[in-house]
Amino acid sequence: MSGTDRRMLAKSQAEGTEEGAGPAVILVEPQLGENIGTVARAMLNHGLTDLRLVNPRDGWPNEKAVSASAGATLVLDQARVYESTKDAIADLQKVYATTARPRYMVKTVLTAREAATEMRAHAQVGRGVGILFGPERTGLVNDDIALADTIITIPLNPGFSSLNLAQCVLLVAHEWFQAGYEGPERQLYTGNSRPATKEELVNLFEHLELELDATGFYTSEEKRPSMVRNIRNMLQRAHMTEQEVRTLHGVIKALVGLKEKRK
Amino acid sequence: MSGTDRRMLAKSQAEGTEEGAGPAVILVEPQLGENIGTVARAMLNHGLTDLRLVNPRDGWPNEKAVSASAGATLVLDQARVYESTKDAIADLQKVYATTARPRYMVKTVLTAREAATEMRAHAQVGRGVGILFGPERTGLVNDDIALADTIITIPLNPGFSSLNLAQCVLLVAHEWFQAGYEGPERQLYTGNSRPATKEELVNLFEHLELELDATGFYTSEEKRPSMVRNIRNMLQRAHMTEQEVRTLHGVIKALVGLKEKRK
Repeated sequence: MSGTDRRMLAKSQAEGTEEGAGPAVILVEPQLGENIGTVARAMLNHGLTDLRLVNPRDGWPNEKAVSASAGATLVLDQARVYESTKDAIADLQKVYATTARPRYMVKTVLTAREAATEMRAHAQVGRGVGILFGPERTGLVNDDIALADTIITIPLNPGFSSLNLAQCVLLVAHEWFQAGYEGPERQLYTGNSRPATKEELVNLFEHLELELDATGFYTSEEKRPSMVRNIRNMLQRAHMTEQEVRTLHGVIKALVGLKEKRK
Repeated sequence: MSGTDRRMLAKSQAEGTEEGAGPAVILVEPQLGENIGTVARAMLNHGLTDLRLVNPRDGWPNEKAVSASAGATLVLDQARVYESTKDAIADLQKVYATTARPRYMVKTVLTAREAATEMRAHAQVGRGVGILFGPERTGLVNDDIALADTIITIPLNPGFSSLNLAQCVLLVAHEWFQAGYEGPERQLYTGNSRPATKEELVNLFEHLELELDATGFYTSEEKRPSMVRNIRNMLQRAHMTEQEVRTLHGVIKALVGLKEKRK
């Protein structure tokens, strides 16, 4: 890739990132390059770019990290290497330590969701925030946890709670990103059309009821009003667009025509 | 593993699962056995056990799935294989389709978080719920999406939004599990000790202030009250346990002793 291509890629990858706002992800003594790569991918998926490595076992840079990162070059290119956890967090003001099991230290323990809200609050007032993740097999040593302000634990099935390193970063980064998500939680996509107006719907209902009357569908005059209401309710639960209302007019016409044809 | 061992393992893995409550995870034409294994792991991490496979490319069972599952045998042993998406969802009442990109269909689109709340509500009244995940490279075809009630889209960095299959399942399953999490979001772990009482804290403050008075630390009588308050405030932010208060009494004594020694 040329230098220009790389810069353009970095610019597009950075679209959903917030300069300097996201927490640093600090991997303490990560073992496998693949895991560093998948961590970088999980970070960039959620707009995080500040990756710090404390004594990566296989050195740095690491080709396996690049190939496992699915192109998260923005993160890998900026990654910084440190000789100790102390050095890696020196410039930060609030540090969180992720642990799978309780460590019997007197320390505040947050869910990842609660931590995300707290980290957003810190970031908003310009504080440097970081999250420590331990080596694959052993997790963080207690001395590193004692450098952190707070413990993050992700609620999981107690009978099967082992996550790999990238999955752990993915879930913590996901909570960070969701805590800042301001889009709609629920929306009806209507494409080029728009939700039908009540007039358009009532016209459709009346078209249907007219034809059903003509076919003798309503055999009981007594039950007709409730049958009409039931079908109107059902059709309104579909939240039709104007286009769909027109389609249904066509469907009714076609079915009526079929009856004519078969006569 | 013996039959008894397997049953005991299954029992322990099921600890955090809710029989019949969680949504089915339906993988449509998954390609790699490894991905089916990591999906099973992600499911069991979050208490989900109903895995359904529509035409897995490499057949079923699949040894690569087993080795990638980190022991999520409970899920893999129960997995069911179907010939079509229609068959795989036949018994379900509410089906969600995960898509990364908009499909220009008139359909409700939910975030994974909103979908989790809705799925919990459906499950609570006994409705069968399932989530469709498409093949690795291509995602779900539109005809399969048209079988679903609702689309789930996970908010991600728009500049870098590609997730692999297991990561996608992990995030959706995580939202499901968190929506049912009833534990504390924040707690101060205090081990065998307990938070100090105000009497214990005030005794500590007075011990410290007495010794500081003796050393001549407070040079300005005028500023003494605010200095006292500042230190009391700082120490209270530590939310000390009774044990830690005793430790700090000891620290004060030791420092005073050091001064004596150095005389």
